[in-house]
Amino acid sequence: MTTTKIILPESEIPTHWYNVVADMPNPPAPPLGPDGNPIGPEALTPIFPMNLIEQEMSAERWIPIPEEVRKVYQLWRPSPMYRAHRLEEMLGTPAKIYYKNEAVSPAGSHKPNTAIAQAYYNKEAGVHRLSTETGAGQWGSALSMAGQIFGIEVIIYMVKVSYHQKPYRRSMMEAWGANVVASPTDQTEAGRKILEKDPDSPGALGIAISEAVEAAATREDTKYSLGSVLNHVLLHQTIIGLEAKKQFEMVGDYPDMIFAPCGGGSNFGGIAFPFIADKASGKEVHLVATEPISCPTLTKGHYAYDFGDTVGLTPLMQMYTLGHDFVPPAIHAGGLRYHGDSPLVSQLYHEGIVEAVAVPNLATFEAGITFARAEGIIPAPETCHAIRATIDEALNCKETKEPKTLFFNLSGHGHFDMTAYDKYFRGELEDYAYPEEAIAESIANLPKF
Amino acid sequence: MTTTKIILPESEIPTHWYNVVADMPNPPAPPLGPDGNPIGPEALTPIFPMNLIEQEMSAERWIPIPEEVRKVYQLWRPSPMYRAHRLEEMLGTPAKIYYKNEAVSPAGSHKPNTAIAQAYYNKEAGVHRLSTETGAGQWGSALSMAGQIFGIEVIIYMVKVSYHQKPYRRSMMEAWGANVVASPTDQTEAGRKILEKDPDSPGALGIAISEAVEAAATREDTKYSLGSVLNHVLLHQTIIGLEAKKQFEMVGDYPDMIFAPCGGGSNFGGIAFPFIADKASGKEVHLVATEPISCPTLTKGHYAYDFGDTVGLTPLMQMYTLGHDFVPPAIHAGGLRYHGDSPLVSQLYHEGIVEAVAVPNLATFEAGITFARAEGIIPAPETCHAIRATIDEALNCKETKEPKTLFFNLSGHGHFDMTAYDKYFRGELEDYAYPEEAIAESIANLPKF
Repeated sequence: MTTTKIILPESEIPTHWYNVVADMPNPPAPPLGPDGNPIGPEALTPIFPMNLIEQEMSAERWIPIPEEVRKVYQLWRPSPMYRAHRLEEMLGTPAKIYYKNEAVSPAGSHKPNTAIAQAYYNKEAGVHRLSTETGAGQWGSALSMAGQIFGIEVIIYMVKVSYHQKPYRRSMMEAWGANVVASPTDQTEAGRKILEKDPDSPGALGIAISEAVEAAATREDTKYSLGSVLNHVLLHQTIIGLEAKKQFEMVGDYPDMIFAPCGGGSNFGGIAFPFIADKASGKEVHLVATEPISCPTLTKGHYAYDFGDTVGLTPLMQMYTLGHDFVPPAIHAGGLRYHGDSPLVSQLYHEGIVEAVAVPNLATFEAGITFARAEGIIPAPETCHAIRATIDEALNCKETKEPKTLFFNLSGHGHFDMTAYDKYFRGELEDYAYPEEAIAESIANLPKF
Repeated sequence: MTTTKIILPESEIPTHWYNVVADMPNPPAPPLGPDGNPIGPEALTPIFPMNLIEQEMSAERWIPIPEEVRKVYQLWRPSPMYRAHRLEEMLGTPAKIYYKNEAVSPAGSHKPNTAIAQAYYNKEAGVHRLSTETGAGQWGSALSMAGQIFGIEVIIYMVKVSYHQKPYRRSMMEAWGANVVASPTDQTEAGRKILEKDPDSPGALGIAISEAVEAAATREDTKYSLGSVLNHVLLHQTIIGLEAKKQFEMVGDYPDMIFAPCGGGSNFGGIAFPFIADKASGKEVHLVATEPISCPTLTKGHYAYDFGDTVGLTPLMQMYTLGHDFVPPAIHAGGLRYHGDSPLVSQLYHEGIVEAVAVPNLATFEAGITFARAEGIIPAPETCHAIRATIDEALNCKETKEPKTLFFNLSGHGHFDMTAYDKYFRGELEDYAYPEEAIAESIANLPKF
C-alpha cells in the first residue's frame, strides 16, 4: 500500500515557533505612529498584552511554544500531510502533489493555531475579554473556541455581508460561547461614522477591525486580537510549515513549489516561512502567495505605509496595500478581502524572496470541485485559490514532463461555504478583476507625511 | 505530554470486516417474501448485485476488504481515537472517556465506510447507476462521494423536510456530482401514491426508501443502495470497532461501556459488533444503543416482521419496529428517524446481548454543547445522543466513584446541522416523547400471515 497520509506523532508537535525576521536580508520596516515617527512597544499596550507585543517585535529565530498551548494543539495537531495520488492521476500529471490538511481543526481551518496562542497569552496577562473582527467567519470561529478553552469572554465584529450570508458560522461561534455582532454596529464611534455615510454599508474587514480595536482601546478589561497580518500571528502559524518539513523528511521528499492562499498573509506565512531558512542555505523552493484578482493586494497594490484599518486607528505599517478605504466587491472571495497584507510577507515579496499570483474567481471554484471529486474533501473558497495555482502548475508539468514536487496548504474546509458553491453551480458567480483606476484612486489617498 | 489522539498507521487498516452472525447464539431470522415464506438470494437481485447479496447472507466470521476499498479508506482511515481529557476534567468524573472520531471522513460521518464498499461492489458487478434515499443527508453525501470515486451515477431521494431544511447538504452532494430530488416525488408510483393522500407530505425515510427501491427495481441499469439496517451495511461499518480494538490495545485499556447513536443500526453495529466476539470469550462490556424518545424503536417498539419501507416494497424483516407507516415528528432528531432497526441489532437486543436507552431531545443538545466547549468538535445531533448517554454515565461514576472506561462513537460533525443548534439556542426546540397510543396503533397495522 502506498502511503496517502503522512502522520507525525503528537510527541513531534514542534516545541518552538520559527521567526522569519531572523533570516530576512533586512530588518522589518518599523510601524509608525500618526506623526510618521516609529512607535515603541508602549504604543501598542492599549490593545495588546506585553507578552504578545514582545513577540511582535522579536528578532529571535526560535520562540518557545508554551506547554499549555501544545496541549490544546493536541486536539488536532500535528495535522496530516497528504499525498494527492488521486488528484495527480485525474490530472495525468508527472508532478507529485502534497497538501497539508489544516481543515482538521475543530474550527475547520488553520486559524486556531494562533487563536489558541493568543488566548493563552492574554489569559496569562490577566485579560478577561477579547474583541476581534471576522470576515468569512473562520477567524471568529477560531477565537471563539480559544476563548472558551481559556475562559476568556469574546466579542466578534462580523462583517455584515458575511453575518447574513453565513448564519451558520455565527451559530458555530455561539456554540463556543462568543457574542457576535454585525459590523458596522452603532456601538462604536468607528461604526457610527461609517453608518452615517452609508447606512446600508455591507461592512468590510477594515471597518470591523476599526470597531474591534476601538472596543479594546476604550475598555480596561478588553484587549484586541487579530487573525492575520501581524508578525506574532504569522509566527504562531509557522507550526504548519515546521510540521510539514518533518513530514517531507519522513517520505524523503522536498517541495519545489509551495502555494498558499494569501489575504492577510498568515496562511501563506505559516506554511512558507519555515522554508525561507532553507532558501538562505541554498535550497531552491518557490514560495507562491495566491490571491484573488478581485482583491489583488500583492500583484496590483502599492508598497507603502498605510493603516491596517479603514478608519485609521492602527499604527501605519509598510506593506502592499490597495488603500485603507478599499472596499472589495461582495463576491465570494471568502476571507481574502483585506486591503493590505502582512508587512513581513510584503517585504519578502518586495525583496523577491517570495512570489505572488492572482487567480480569477470562477477558476478557483472549478479547481475546488476538481479537488473534491478526486480527494473527497470540499475546500474553503480561500483554499481553492491555492488549489487553482497548484493545478495550473501540475498541468504545466504535464506539458513540460517535469516531475516537480508541488505542495499547498489546504487551509480550511468549505462546509460553511456551500452557498458559494451553490451559486457557482447555478451560474450566479462571475469573474471580477478590480479595476486598476479604482485601485489608483484608492492609493492616491494613502497617508502622506 | 499525555496522549490525546490514539493514531493507527495506514498499514493497520483492517484487512477484513467482522461478521457478527458467526458469533450470535442463534442464526439470524430469515427475511420473508410478501407470502410470508423465507426468500432466497434471487429475490434480492432486482435491487442488489449478487456480490453484496452474498455478503448479506454470509455467516463467515471474516470477510476480506478489497484492496481498492482499503486504498480509498486511506483518504481518512484509520480514524483517530481520542482520550477526552478535557471533557473528563469539565465533568469532574473519575471515568475515562474515549471516542472514535468518524467525523474526519470527507462526508463528515461514518457513512462512507459502507458507501465506498457498496460503490466498489456495484462497479465490479457492472452497475452504472445507484439510487438511494437520505434523511439528514449524511448517507446521501457519503454515497455521492463514493459514486464519484468509482464512476457511478447516483440519484438521491432526499426526505423533503430535510431537503428544505438542509440546502447545504444538497449542495455538498451536488459537489460530488449526484442528482438530488425532494421525496416524495411524482417520478415514482410510490411517491405519487403518497402525494395523492397528502400533497404536503414532509416525506419520511420509509417513503424515500420506497421511491429509491422502485427506481432500482424498474430500471435495468440501476441498483439500490442502503445506508443502514442491512447485514452487509453493518458488516462494512465494523471497521470502526476493529480499529478501536487495536487502539485500545495501543494504550493498554479496554472499555466497560460503549455508546453509539442508533437509528437504522449501522453506527451502533459498526462500533459494537467487534466487541461481541470478546463478550463470547467472557469479557464484560456493555454495548448501549442510544435512540431519541421521539423515535424509540428499540425501547418502545415491537419485535416482529415488518417492511423496511413505508409502501411495502421490501422483503419483511424481523426487527424492532414502530410500524412501517410510523412518521416521526419533524423535530431535529437528525438521522435517527427510522421506524425499524437493523435485524441483527434487533435480534441481539432481543436476546439481551446488547442494551438500549432512549434520551430526550433538549438534553442531547445540551450534551453536544458541553462536548464542543470541552473538546472543540461540534457534533452531529445524532451523535449527541451517544454523548448524552456517555456524560450521564460519567456523572453516575462521579457519584459512585467508579473509574469506568467509557467509549462512544463520534459518528459525525454538526457543520450541516447548525440550524438545529440555532433553534436550540433560541429556545425553539422541545422534548417530544412519541405517544405510546400512537405507537400501539401503528403496530396494530403490522403485516399478518
